[in-house]
Amino acid sequence: MIIDRLFDNVSKNGCVCLGLDTSPAYIPEDFSRGFATDADAVFAFNKKIIDATADVVACYKAQIAYYEALGLAGLEAYKKTLAYVKSVGQISIADVKRGDISATAEMYARAHFTGDFEADFVTLNPYLGLDSLEPYERYFASGEKGCFVLLRTSNPGAKDIQYLDTADGRKVYEVVAEKIQSFGEKYIGARGYSAVGAVMGATNREEGRRLREMCGTTFLLIPGFGAQGGTAGDVALYLQDGNGGVANSSRGILTAYKKIDGGGEKFAECARTEAVEMNEKIRGAVNENHFEPR
Amino acid sequence: MIIDRLFDNVSKNGCVCLGLDTSPAYIPEDFSRGFATDADAVFAFNKKIIDATADVVACYKAQIAYYEALGLAGLEAYKKTLAYVKSVGQISIADVKRGDISATAEMYARAHFTGDFEADFVTLNPYLGLDSLEPYERYFASGEKGCFVLLRTSNPGAKDIQYLDTADGRKVYEVVAEKIQSFGEKYIGARGYSAVGAVMGATNREEGRRLREMCGTTFLLIPGFGAQGGTAGDVALYLQDGNGGVANSSRGILTAYKKIDGGGEKFAECARTEAVEMNEKIRGAVNENHFEPR
Repeated sequence: MIIDRLFDNVSKNGCVCLGLDTSPAYIPEDFSRGFATDADAVFAFNKKIIDATADVVACYKAQIAYYEALGLAGLEAYKKTLAYVKSVGQISIADVKRGDISATAEMYARAHFTGDFEADFVTLNPYLGLDSLEPYERYFASGEKGCFVLLRTSNPGAKDIQYLDTADGRKVYEVVAEKIQSFGEKYIGARGYSAVGAVMGATNREEGRRLREMCGTTFLLIPGFGAQGGTAGDVALYLQDGNGGVANSSRGILTAYKKIDGGGEKFAECARTEAVEMNEKIRGAVNENHFEPR
Repeated sequence: MIIDRLFDNVSKNGCVCLGLDTSPAYIPEDFSRGFATDADAVFAFNKKIIDATADVVACYKAQIAYYEALGLAGLEAYKKTLAYVKSVGQISIADVKRGDISATAEMYARAHFTGDFEADFVTLNPYLGLDSLEPYERYFASGEKGCFVLLRTSNPGAKDIQYLDTADGRKVYEVVAEKIQSFGEKYIGARGYSAVGAVMGATNREEGRRLREMCGTTFLLIPGFGAQGGTAGDVALYLQDGNGGVANSSRGILTAYKKIDGGGEKFAECARTEAVEMNEKIRGAVNENHFEPR
């Protein structure tokens, strides 16, 4: 199952999910200059980043918005990026956050699990309800595909809906967490995690522990590391013996070269170093947690 | 402002929003046969539908999932469809239901309000909170663009999140409704409606009236007519003197030709007749409401 492969990648390479949210603005000028279009530069940049990091990250997440913003040419770069991730034997997450009624969701499943834009995982938005997830189920059942459903994001606006108190005392996202955990129990793989994962932003310690307990077999995609303010300790909260989740970093890794003079020439090596350091920090935080009384 | 143009279209042509959720399966075989690819057939079909209906509908809504499912070629058909809607002087809604954190939302705004995929309105998902709408605001402020935020959908799964009771006695979607109404008050046009509209599924009479009162200046996109079970009476509930909303029908109009023998040859005329009848039914229901004591 794809979720077992992801688990094994985390064991082997660490839990970094490298976000290919590649804005043309992130690419060193000397490098972009060699390409006719932004879209061409984006794909060539991604390719170098992937080549330099494939053995030190758990997976790659492509945020489709950055490619859509470049129009059809951008989506061609998106397609080529996903295909390249596959060609090096790595795992892709299509960060598309789709959510729609069933006939439409069926089309989105086809769009992102087959054909030009095929990825291993998609991210989904639960606002329309659980029936909006059903059209993806036959892909989960095949063992070849999985998803991450948005539970709790790490932006300030998360309070507007996700944090509303419901009549029975739980927050909206806790209700969603319980539904997703239960929905996903049909698709648990050999390593104990479901192909139906969840997006869970970093949070405080107590809340993190409660969520992790509530969603014991849910694999987590943890956004917000680095540029968005999340720390290794935040990520470690959600990991169980160092696995069961991946932590995404995009800009922090893609633009790591900006931290050193003349780094533009070595952007791919800098990305690798940054990913390795992120892994080490998280591993350190996991080990610290391990020795705390629970 | 674009929202005034939409209001004027409803006054002139009626409140039908024609959904171009064009599955290749909806296209008469004799017609598809003339094209090399599904994507080519989809665009040619859309073009004929638009030519036959542009003066009897308020606007067109393209559901991007149907195009994404055909890959890059499908998205080229999507691009050409939006451009064609514009070329006949009509209004387009990109039904993309995007919702993401601000840097990403900025990319989505660029993707769907400029360039290859430029549309007049987009649909947005509020689960991430109001800050996920902010990157679109400068387009609303320009007067040239608008949106419809998902409040309440008409699928059974709507109960899972949208209908949760909150601690203060309101449903989640009512909380969202209030936030969207208030957020949109900055962008009210000359006809009294905001460029920030809402997607509101058909519902029971009492609930519909309460929502309409709560969101007096919010223009509504009402899904679920026809194939999804919504009636003219359901739609009329949300209209104020016959305006302030558009009712979407997709499959019911696109495949109206299937109701008559040999209709395939006249699919475009059949679509026109169906749209005109839908308008008349809704107008009838609005008039009935008008004479009821409120």
